Amino acid sequence: MISSKPVRGTRDILPDEMQIRDQLEGKILEIYRNHGFSRIETPVMENLELLLGSDGGENLKMLFTILKRGEKLKLSSDAKVSGICDMGLRFDLTLPLSRFYSNNQAVLEAPFKAIQIGNVFRAERPQKGRYRSFKQCDIDIIGDETIHAEIELMDTTAKALLAIGFKGFTIKVNHRQLLSRIIQKFNFPIEDIGSVCISLDKMDKIGLDGVTQELFKKGYEDNSIDGLMRCINTINLENIAEWVDDSVSQESLTQVITMVKGLGKNCYQVVYDPTLIRGMGYYTGLIFEVSYGPYGYSIAGGGRYDNMIGKYNKVSVPAVGFSIGFERIINILMEEQKETWIEDQPIILFYEKTDDFLEVIKQGDLFREKGYAVNLMLKKKKFGKQITGCSKQHYQGFIVFGRDHEIKEL
Amino acid sequence: MISSKPVRGTRDILPDEMQIRDQLEGKILEIYRNHGFSRIETPVMENLELLLGSDGGENLKMLFTILKRGEKLKLSSDAKVSGICDMGLRFDLTLPLSRFYSNNQAVLEAPFKAIQIGNVFRAERPQKGRYRSFKQCDIDIIGDETIHAEIELMDTTAKALLAIGFKGFTIKVNHRQLLSRIIQKFNFPIEDIGSVCISLDKMDKIGLDGVTQELFKKGYEDNSIDGLMRCINTINLENIAEWVDDSVSQESLTQVITMVKGLGKNCYQVVYDPTLIRGMGYYTGLIFEVSYGPYGYSIAGGGRYDNMIGKYNKVSVPAVGFSIGFERIINILMEEQKETWIEDQPIILFYEKTDDFLEVIKQGDLFREKGYAVNLMLKKKKFGKQITGCSKQHYQGFIVFGRDHEIKEL
Repeated sequence: MISSKPVRGTRDILPDEMQIRDQLEGKILEIYRNHGFSRIETPVMENLELLLGSDGGENLKMLFTILKRGEKLKLSSDAKVSGICDMGLRFDLTLPLSRFYSNNQAVLEAPFKAIQIGNVFRAERPQKGRYRSFKQCDIDIIGDETIHAEIELMDTTAKALLAIGFKGFTIKVNHRQLLSRIIQKFNFPIEDIGSVCISLDKMDKIGLDGVTQELFKKGYEDNSIDGLMRCINTINLENIAEWVDDSVSQESLTQVITMVKGLGKNCYQVVYDPTLIRGMGYYTGLIFEVSYGPYGYSIAGGGRYDNMIGKYNKVSVPAVGFSIGFERIINILMEEQKETWIEDQPIILFYEKTDDFLEVIKQGDLFREKGYAVNLMLKKKKFGKQITGCSKQHYQGFIVFGRDHEIKEL
Repeated sequence: MISSKPVRGTRDILPDEMQIRDQLEGKILEIYRNHGFSRIETPVMENLELLLGSDGGENLKMLFTILKRGEKLKLSSDAKVSGICDMGLRFDLTLPLSRFYSNNQAVLEAPFKAIQIGNVFRAERPQKGRYRSFKQCDIDIIGDETIHAEIELMDTTAKALLAIGFKGFTIKVNHRQLLSRIIQKFNFPIEDIGSVCISLDKMDKIGLDGVTQELFKKGYEDNSIDGLMRCINTINLENIAEWVDDSVSQESLTQVITMVKGLGKNCYQVVYDPTLIRGMGYYTGLIFEVSYGPYGYSIAGGGRYDNMIGKYNKVSVPAVGFSIGFERIINILMEEQKETWIEDQPIILFYEKTDDFLEVIKQGDLFREKGYAVNLMLKKKKFGKQITGCSKQHYQGFIVFGRDHEIKEL
């Protein structure tokens, strides 16, 4: 017999969770649209050349690639993936959006405020709560080089999180340029900044010692590593200028944090976090992440990526994005408050084999007109047992065809 | 520069169409849920063994397969796809549902009424209106062997189509068992029924002569081919018994058509179509398809597939499904009545660089509380020109921050 398990690292979504997911997605989408963003969609697969040519960082090691077909496929023992595959599954929604913008710029508004909700794919080592196929809800503003873009994205994302029941989360903010300057100040080579960032990004997982060791293994000087670690540990919004001379980045960082604090008030916090890195190689300016409660992972993240669209476009275009990790918020909501999300459950209309099925359907429609969802169900001989079984599902009540005119409780 | 086109045979979806798609999907989902169906979701990729072991018919030739990763990948010049790939993209939603049902049966209701909305992938030759990635909206009833399942699916699908503005469509119905009997009657070998069906399925595209030729090329007798073609041309709901002795199938066919006709009344037609085949090899009973207006393709299709779940399950489970071809209905609606679907357009709140952005956001929120979607937009020097540009987009009106308190027309 063939296995009925979903592919490794993925999962099936059952009806109760699916209903919660649809409601959440609906609420997030409503907030996004209310703030003037427009939804777009791109295919889950992209040309392999595009994916491999991106600054995808570690994600490029986790690509799912699709085999060429027919005559195009030429196999040999020394063939390379890039030779026998021509497509791959997207690992995020930012790269496809950049391609989309270049492809459709002529008919899009400027600035363009995009919504994307869809699955992305990474061949991560499967572990609890981490999947190889997972949903992201992204908003991006393309064509606005001012910090208004960052502020709008933070404001809108925060409102979406509040709307689905999150409160007291923290938006952590950092600036890639500032971080670069700091790294350079401690004499790391300019071409190694990306690599140093990849190590720093692991701070949450492997701690200060782990990062120090990793940088040491990469062959950097003790002095550089020590200096960098001391700075990361000490720097704050007030003393930035003592560590590094970058008034432009410092001002952006301070203004954005101050203004979004003014919007968040008592509902959420906004802080400068010098250890915030974000894995993606493509960020160029402010970067941000949302942490919540005791959970050791971020529930949203994003940043400015001003150089990406220029790869497909003759002109460079400024861009910022903020992405909600849908699987993570679902995990938390399913743990914390599942029951509050089950709404609008159907009633059951029981019928007998001998009933006129046309009339059964018509009675169902009468209740639907009154606003109920109605599930037609064949009445079993052991009706009491059937009722008990149904009462464990999410039903509001039931009626028996030809007998009841009022809905009864299960 | 890297190409910004989406992969061959796929396309980007722009904001206007996306809004229509979301509204349509929402209405279809609402009808499905109102009729007691529950939405589930499975990953877009499945194990290759599962896909290749299915009765996918012609679709198996159009599989996108995903390369194995790391040490599992062993390339050689005579490697087979099934050896170097371990997953593939799903070509329909029926096979994944069957796997899902077997995997989760213990926690699902019986009968289980499923909704699936998602993309499927087929490497078809790209042509107008046919894509390699396209959305389907499926409902299925698993665990009901009576014709009530078929009737509920037809009733619900028809209501969904009516709800999104289709009227006067035709549900064509046929019965695989009856068709098998007819094919056997003309002395085609029993093991070739699937192959004969695949040829008959091309009737719409290549006509009676084309099908006759294809069957001739496949090596069948002239007598068999002539007889089959004459029957297909002459048979109707009243004279079935003259052609073939299969009272059980005949009764199902007649009852379903009669009852759904009673439900459709003046809104849609229901007919017996002996030339209806449906490509998939896995159907076992009644099959159906919806045709609409002058369009040469079906907008929905489905049927009974009682033997599929048994492949993953110890016990065989009866099942029926009905799938709406979302791309096709979108194509038609975009042609016929696009404007009627654009609803709830935002207003623009224009602001100056010198305005306090915090206050701008707050004024936006005031209008959002009144029920408007609000897009914040930096006021340009040539404001008249900017207004003209915006009036070509779908906006309800605008306000200028610090000046207007009432919404002005664009």
